[in-house]
Amino acid sequence: MQTTAFQHRFTVGLADTDAAGVLFYGHLFRHAHDAFEAFMARCGHPVPEIIAAGEWGLPIAHAKADYLRPMRHGEAITVELTVRELGEHSFRLGYRFRGPGGTLRARAETVHVATGRADGATRPLPEPLRTSLTGAPGTGPTPSER
Amino acid sequence: MQTTAFQHRFTVGLADTDAAGVLFYGHLFRHAHDAFEAFMARCGHPVPEIIAAGEWGLPIAHAKADYLRPMRHGEAITVELTVRELGEHSFRLGYRFRGPGGTLRARAETVHVATGRADGATRPLPEPLRTSLTGAPGTGPTPSER
Amino acid sequence: MQTTAFQHRFTVGLADTDAAGVLFYGHLFRHAHDAFEAFMARCGHPVPEIIAAGEWGLPIAHAKADYLRPMRHGEAITVELTVRELGEHSFRLGYRFRGPGGTLRARAETVHVATGRADGATRPLPEPLRTSLTGAPGTGPTPSER
Amino acid sequence: MQTTAFQHRFTVGLADTDAAGVLFYGHLFRHAHDAFEAFMARCGHPVPEIIAAGEWGLPIAHAKADYLRPMRHGEAITVELTVRELGEHSFRLGYRFRGPGGTLRARAETVHVATGRADGATRPLPEPLRTSLTGAPGTGPTPSER
Repeated sequence: MQTTAFQHRFTVGLADTDAAGVLFYGHLFRHAHDAFEAFMARCGHPVPEIIAAGEWGLPIAHAKADYLRPMRHGEAITVELTVRELGEHSFRLGYRFRGPGGTLRARAETVHVATGRADGATRPLPEPLRTSLTGAPGTGPTPSER
Repeated sequence: MQTTAFQHRFTVGLADTDAAGVLFYGHLFRHAHDAFEAFMARCGHPVPEIIAAGEWGLPIAHAKADYLRPMRHGEAITVELTVRELGEHSFRLGYRFRGPGGTLRARAETVHVATGRADGATRPLPEPLRTSLTGAPGTGPTPSER
Repeated sequence: MQTTAFQHRFTVGLADTDAAGVLFYGHLFRHAHDAFEAFMARCGHPVPEIIAAGEWGLPIAHAKADYLRPMRHGEAITVELTVRELGEHSFRLGYRFRGPGGTLRARAETVHVATGRADGATRPLPEPLRTSLTGAPGTGPTPSER
Repeated sequence: MQTTAFQHRFTVGLADTDAAGVLFYGHLFRHAHDAFEAFMARCGHPVPEIIAAGEWGLPIAHAKADYLRPMRHGEAITVELTVRELGEHSFRLGYRFRGPGGTLRARAETVHVATGRADGATRPLPEPLRTSLTGAPGTGPTPSER
C-alpha cells in the first residue's frame, strides 16, 4: 500500500487507444500531466496560474515510462503520484498506473525544472512551492517498487 | 436549465491547450467522445464491450461544433449530453460545454451509425440499445439552444 | 479533378487510430489544422507569426466533418483545401480527405473569425490576408461535391 | 554529422503546442512513433501490416526523453532515428530531434519487445525483421551524444 501517494483517476477512452487495441504509449504522458496538474492544484500552486503569470515555468526536462501490462479500452486507471526528489532548481515526480484491483500497469517519471519565462534560464524553485512539495500528499520516502 | 441532460465533467489540461492559450478546437471532440462513452456505460452499453465483441460498431458519420467562448487552461467544464434524434440505423447526440457558472462555451453534435464490422454496411440499431437510448438520461425533447 | 485545391499529405499513424482500427474522428481536425497551417504559410501569413505577434488571431468558430469511408492505419491521405467563402470578418475553408486512388474518405469545414487578442472582439480581416486568400491556391468557385 | 541516421521531418503544428507556447512534452512521443513507422516501412516491415496480421506485435516496453531546448510553433524539426541495440526479443531505438540549423532540441529512446498477440508472451524477433534492422539505415555504432 502506498499511503503517501496523491491519487488521480481516469478511464481509458477510445481516443487513448490505438489499432493494437490498447493505450497508445505516448498518451500515458498526457494522463501523467493531468495527474501532475491535479496535484499542483491540491498543493495550492495551480499550473494555469503559474503559466498565466508569465514569470517562470516548470518545463519538463526529462520523462520516462515503463509499460508493464497493457491498459485496455474502458479500464479505470488510478495514477499514484509521489514526489521522488526535491532539488534546488528542480523536482522529480514518480507515477504508478494501476488497473482495477491494483495491478501495476506502468511506471513513469518526470523531472520539472524551474525556469524564467523571459530567458529560459534555470532558477531556484520558489520557496512557497518548495514548502508545499515538502509537505504535500505524495511526498515522502520512495515507496517500494511494487 | 436542462434537467434531462447526462453530465460529464473534465478540467482543461495543459495538453488540451495550444499556443493561443485556449483549448485546441479539435480536442473538443475527444472530450465529447469521453462524455459519449460515459453515457453509453451508464445506459448499460459500454463502448469497449461493443468494440471488443467485434460484430457491429457505432462509427461517427458526422460531427460538428460551434465554439462560442474560449475554454481556458484549468477551467472546470461540464458537458451536457442529450439524445437529439433516434433513427432506425443511427442516432444524433447533442453536447453543450459549459464553464464555471454555467456559461455556454461550445455546442457540438455527433451522428453515430450502426454498422457491421465485417462489411461496414449499415444495420438497424440493436433493440436493447434503442430501448436504452429512448429512456436514457439525456433523452427527451430538444432543449432550447441556450 | 480539383485543379484549384491546395494539397497537404499525411500518413495515418498508429497514434491516429483507435481500438476500432481506424482514424479516431477527432484526430481528423488536427490534420485539417495542419493543412490550414501549411496553406497559410504558403499564402505568406504563417499562423505561428500571427499568434506570436499577439495582436489578433483566427480562432475557429465552427467546424464540421462528414466521415464517408474509414481511414486506415498506414494509408497515405491527401487533404485538398479550398477557400469556400471570404467574408468581412471571417472565412470558411473546405477540406476533402482522399485515400490512395483518390477515393473521398471525409469532408470537413472550418470557419475562422478574425478577433483581437486583447478583447476577443471580432474585427475585419487584415487587408493583406484578404488579398492573399482571394488569389490563393485553393481559392475559387466551390468545386462540385465529389 | 550522423551519417547513418534515418531521417523523418515534421513541423510543430498548433495542435502540438500548449499554453506555454512550445511543444507539449507528451506529443514528442507521437512524432517519435511517426518516425518509427516511417523507418519500419522503409525497412520493409510496415507496422500497419504487422498489426493487421494479428499474430505478433512490437509493443513499447520503455520510453524516455530529454528535453534540451523548446520546440516552438512552426519550427521544422528533423528526427534522426538510429537502432541502438538489437537483442534476441527486443530492440532499442534512439531519436534526436533537431531544429533548423541542426541544434539538438531533444533526445528520446524507445524499447520495442516482440510479443505474441494472443498471449502477450515475449517471443524472438522474426528473422527477416532482425536482418532488416541489422542492415537498416539508422543502424550502426551509436553516434556520439551531440
